[in-house]
Amino acid sequence: MIEYFTEEGSAKAVNARMGDTVNPRLRTIMASLIEHLHGFIKDVELTEPEWETAIDFLTRTGQICSEHRQEFILLSDTLGVSMLVDAINARRPQGATENTVFGPFHVDGAPIREMGETISLDEKGESCLYEGRVLDLQGNAIEGAMLDVWSDNIDGYYDVQQPDLQPKWNNRGRFVTGADGCYSFRGIKPVSYPIPDDGPVGQMLALLGRHPWRPAHMHFMLTALGYQRVVTHTFAVGDEYLTSDTVFGVKASLLQTFEHNKSGATQWKAEFDFVLVPG
Amino acid sequence: MIEYFTEEGSAKAVNARMGDTVNPRLRTIMASLIEHLHGFIKDVELTEPEWETAIDFLTRTGQICSEHRQEFILLSDTLGVSMLVDAINARRPQGATENTVFGPFHVDGAPIREMGETISLDEKGESCLYEGRVLDLQGNAIEGAMLDVWSDNIDGYYDVQQPDLQPKWNNRGRFVTGADGCYSFRGIKPVSYPIPDDGPVGQMLALLGRHPWRPAHMHFMLTALGYQRVVTHTFAVGDEYLTSDTVFGVKASLLQTFEHNKSGATQWKAEFDFVLVPG
Repeated sequence: MIEYFTEEGSAKAVNARMGDTVNPRLRTIMASLIEHLHGFIKDVELTEPEWETAIDFLTRTGQICSEHRQEFILLSDTLGVSMLVDAINARRPQGATENTVFGPFHVDGAPIREMGETISLDEKGESCLYEGRVLDLQGNAIEGAMLDVWSDNIDGYYDVQQPDLQPKWNNRGRFVTGADGCYSFRGIKPVSYPIPDDGPVGQMLALLGRHPWRPAHMHFMLTALGYQRVVTHTFAVGDEYLTSDTVFGVKASLLQTFEHNKSGATQWKAEFDFVLVPG
Repeated sequence: MIEYFTEEGSAKAVNARMGDTVNPRLRTIMASLIEHLHGFIKDVELTEPEWETAIDFLTRTGQICSEHRQEFILLSDTLGVSMLVDAINARRPQGATENTVFGPFHVDGAPIREMGETISLDEKGESCLYEGRVLDLQGNAIEGAMLDVWSDNIDGYYDVQQPDLQPKWNNRGRFVTGADGCYSFRGIKPVSYPIPDDGPVGQMLALLGRHPWRPAHMHFMLTALGYQRVVTHTFAVGDEYLTSDTVFGVKASLLQTFEHNKSGATQWKAEFDFVLVPG
């Protein structure tokens, strides 16, 4: 008995078509994708005009992509997919620093600076001293850990979004810990900013009653020999978008308090200890 | 207590972000989409390289779309989504003619011809007499039903795929039933053909061990005042791709037997009765 496509057996019909020599991991992924995709369509009983809207949305999302814009990553971010993939692939024990989204604005090869130096090369923004320690799960200092840090500028843009501005490497730098595991550098108190919302993803957010803003955050990527890489941000306590980050990046363990710096060297002071996991 | 994003509560976190004034139907669709999308990612524990592959695939699928090509519809077709949406939206009682995929090659306004005339204007291919009746569920003839018919040519192309070829309207025509509900026209016995497989969807099919072929079929769109529109094909019994149509269009009720025409006016003869539902 040949089994043709039926409404009831739709996912089974599609998955039965896969060949015998398909890569086993691809088979697993496609089988689950088809089950969930068909399940969604059946759950909502998608109409033909709605299907047409979806085809049009996906097409426009692809067509706006360019060398400088990745709208499908923006879609993944705003639907919580990027955070979920990261969460699944960076599970860590209690007490270890958690990851959050990498974001599209990291640049390899930022200048390596001495502890205490500034990354705020244009000196625009509210100055802040960042300091803390890099530790293992037992609280021991990690020597030779590299902190790669980056933030937006006073106008909410990363340097790569304004390539004509000088000086280069504004609000970026790398720092390597000594035997005490401590780090310190000066930067600015970052500001909140909207993701690009003039495309299909922005239209989607508007229809969903959502804003396109991210709360102010400082990016950190930590690497140390023998430890898992940590890609994370610290988020400024008090930011108005802290509970509604449009890409769902905020975690309770990543909140950072900015205090007025009584020593006066900078306007603000912000502490944070990072805890790395072997791997 | 503020709830930030967590792996366990990921879909809930995303859906809780929708505004109060969101269109209720959009809310239903998005909530189900997020549940199933996150469910899929959790089921397979999608890795970051796999996520990157998905982003790249969707981007390339969007970028290859043009005025003459719709790769996302091709993707929908080859994943059984188009057939499923049609099945959900065209449920009919036992005995009624079933729908199948519309396909991208219909053209409005084909010539209206007399019963018995030919649509094979280039006279290339194996000639076939198509005949049958248009009936209601009680077996009564339907007068004034319009049959809009189209097929590929001997080389497997529709006329719109070869716009420079003459004559125009080759293998297309419209016919209107009289009081007896009967139709008859001459065309060719259609041939199987591959969907465009030089893009991302073709690459996907190859990785899944699937071919890009559709079994030979004649397209019919039937409209009659007071009845639901039927968009369907008849499929040639004996075609080698009948059980593996790459877009899952074949249904058991749509198989059509081609017999040698003993009267000799055409090489083949193919009968099919259509049964329409009020609506």
